[in-house]
Amino acid sequence: MTSVSPASHEADSLRDASASDPTAHGWMEGFPPPPDRTIGAADGSAWAFPRTRWAFCHMRELYPTANVPRGDAPVALLPRAERDDLDAVEFTTLDGRRMTWGQSLAANYTDGIVVLHRGVTVQERYFGALQPELAHTAMSVTKSFVGTLAAMLADRRVLDPQAAVTHYLPELGAGAYRSATLRQLMDMTVGVRYSEVYADPQADIWRYARAGGMQPRPAGYDGPQTLCDYLATLAQEGTHGEAFAYKTVNTEVLAWIIKRATGQRLATLTSDLLWSRLGAEHDAHYAVDSVGTESGGGGLNTTLRDLARFGEAMRQDGWFNGQQIIPERVVAGIKGGADRGRFERAGYALLPGWSYRDMWWVTHNAHGAYTARGIHGQAIWIDPKAEMVIARYASHPQAANSPHLDPTSLPAYEALGRHLLRNA
Amino acid sequence: MTSVSPASHEADSLRDASASDPTAHGWMEGFPPPPDRTIGAADGSAWAFPRTRWAFCHMRELYPTANVPRGDAPVALLPRAERDDLDAVEFTTLDGRRMTWGQSLAANYTDGIVVLHRGVTVQERYFGALQPELAHTAMSVTKSFVGTLAAMLADRRVLDPQAAVTHYLPELGAGAYRSATLRQLMDMTVGVRYSEVYADPQADIWRYARAGGMQPRPAGYDGPQTLCDYLATLAQEGTHGEAFAYKTVNTEVLAWIIKRATGQRLATLTSDLLWSRLGAEHDAHYAVDSVGTESGGGGLNTTLRDLARFGEAMRQDGWFNGQQIIPERVVAGIKGGADRGRFERAGYALLPGWSYRDMWWVTHNAHGAYTARGIHGQAIWIDPKAEMVIARYASHPQAANSPHLDPTSLPAYEALGRHLLRNA
Repeated sequence: MTSVSPASHEADSLRDASASDPTAHGWMEGFPPPPDRTIGAADGSAWAFPRTRWAFCHMRELYPTANVPRGDAPVALLPRAERDDLDAVEFTTLDGRRMTWGQSLAANYTDGIVVLHRGVTVQERYFGALQPELAHTAMSVTKSFVGTLAAMLADRRVLDPQAAVTHYLPELGAGAYRSATLRQLMDMTVGVRYSEVYADPQADIWRYARAGGMQPRPAGYDGPQTLCDYLATLAQEGTHGEAFAYKTVNTEVLAWIIKRATGQRLATLTSDLLWSRLGAEHDAHYAVDSVGTESGGGGLNTTLRDLARFGEAMRQDGWFNGQQIIPERVVAGIKGGADRGRFERAGYALLPGWSYRDMWWVTHNAHGAYTARGIHGQAIWIDPKAEMVIARYASHPQAANSPHLDPTSLPAYEALGRHLLRNA
Repeated sequence: MTSVSPASHEADSLRDASASDPTAHGWMEGFPPPPDRTIGAADGSAWAFPRTRWAFCHMRELYPTANVPRGDAPVALLPRAERDDLDAVEFTTLDGRRMTWGQSLAANYTDGIVVLHRGVTVQERYFGALQPELAHTAMSVTKSFVGTLAAMLADRRVLDPQAAVTHYLPELGAGAYRSATLRQLMDMTVGVRYSEVYADPQADIWRYARAGGMQPRPAGYDGPQTLCDYLATLAQEGTHGEAFAYKTVNTEVLAWIIKRATGQRLATLTSDLLWSRLGAEHDAHYAVDSVGTESGGGGLNTTLRDLARFGEAMRQDGWFNGQQIIPERVVAGIKGGADRGRFERAGYALLPGWSYRDMWWVTHNAHGAYTARGIHGQAIWIDPKAEMVIARYASHPQAANSPHLDPTSLPAYEALGRHLLRNA
């Protein structure tokens, strides 16, 4: 079997949201589905657009997963008062086009959108294959969960941000993380040789994905068998602490540290510290590698509403469902962001003045917005001033948010926040 | 990677329940787990005792799965009044030893046991790696779910038991099922060449398991890629309708028919017709093959308590959780059993006078007991006269209930029923 990389489907990638609507393609329908309508892990087709539009809502049917139990507490109901004025909200895309919020949903291949204003659901809509009870891959939005957990554990003095990575993981003493601190790891200012250019089939991200079982392995594969094995192969590049450099492997190392320091699985910690307290409607789950290691870099899957609940807890400075779930000073630390000069060195032309803290992206805009971001359009956008949370799952044909999704997303989020602030 | 078959671990199979207790072995503990403590699907180690004692409680971490949602109805609480007189109940094993109920639990490598008497939990205990909130593989207990669903659909006239298998699945017209009826399929009196001797590495059951993704495939594997592909390869052996012959493939064909006739996935039907109405505490899940086909022959995983809920619904002639979930006449059909002469021809020395109906085993004993059975000790035992339901999950080193588990299980179930009848 051969790998089908997203980059090999240029023609398919020209299909817009309507033409790629998975409900019209019959993916995995029929008993059995016809050969040209199947989607699998072993042949890599799960990662080939437009099949991704089905696969991203059905990851547990393709990969082994670890459950994140919601526990047995009541669901935290989200009040609902849907508004019909949001779709018409206009904004200018980063490349200069006028567009409405409603149009942006299709432009971004949105699978589902929830907008909370002051904790009330003012818009909730599902497209494509997503349904309210289905879990969608959060991709790198997972990282913000892991970063929040790490910050919570640091607040409890279980982790020391000033400690060396190798204090927790001595087995990484020979590699990339040799002289890095936990704080540098949490803010992704570690210098590690690792390419995350999704459009490049030779990028390290694919080696990582093969080790973690997320991409098929070619015949005779003799590379790393697990995520941990792969992390140990990484070499340093540049100086730690100098510049922001977004690398998924850093979050895998952070997740590893969390597990080593607590003796708990990531799925267990996510459930105990967050999921069981958020009044989630459904269990969540992490994709796991061949030895049960949850991917902290991109393996979480949740329903859209449950993602919004987490966002709302952050917006309320950690308070949600009648309890302080995340310490207020942890959220304050995240919202405050990090050094913007270090961020600037990463060269994100579309993210001027931003910073990155505890695995969250901080805009430092007039509303103090901060966001969790995942490839293909996954996002939590928190606008404290507008008292707004946006949770979005998507299956855009292009992986990278910058430059593909940001032009029609970031100004849309900001415009919606301004609109809700003016029309509260 | 090479397959590790249960039969290749004779020395391990001598370990008793205590010596094989998975909590003492450290399976999959540590971040990452040490190489000699890992359990995986790709190397077949998940099926090698004593690793099975961990794996059977963690199948979704090893295989892709389809969710069976419990829905959002309240949990059907099981009243609890645990009794301390059950463990001392004595019985004579089928090979002539005296044993107590309490001793039988270890003898059978029980992972968890729930005994309901008149709907009240009188015993609930967990051993090994099982916990109340973890789903355990039901193995062939799955078949009784599928048989019940088929009988419910026949009751609704969605299926016609007198119709030919090929009426629903014309693509099987050239193979084993060519002149078989649905009724013959539901009662496993189909003549199909298929060996299910688990101790034989050459048995067809392993070919089936490789096609379905449940066993690793050797390098260069060019056999069937899916469960459906495999079913189409089967040839007839003997005459349909003459004798009971227990073959897992028959249930896979039955599940296929159910899906074809309803246009629904097995996971969806299980949820809609059973799981969402039983007040289950947790979602269940099916293992799926590479094209998302749920294994109806052995792929269901549930928590132990939820398994007991299904058993209690059967015991109450389909009534549970304030509603008639399964039509009374469907349960009556199952309890009534089938032709005992046809069953006798299968040669189960330990099951005299039994029959098999709608994928349930019917004892025709004095209490009218009937049972769902799965390899390695999975069971639902329903004793109508004693108003007792036993749900058991287990990880016995030997697969076949007859002769390995039955001697210490069947008389234990019967003795407990007699005890509860006398001491109600």
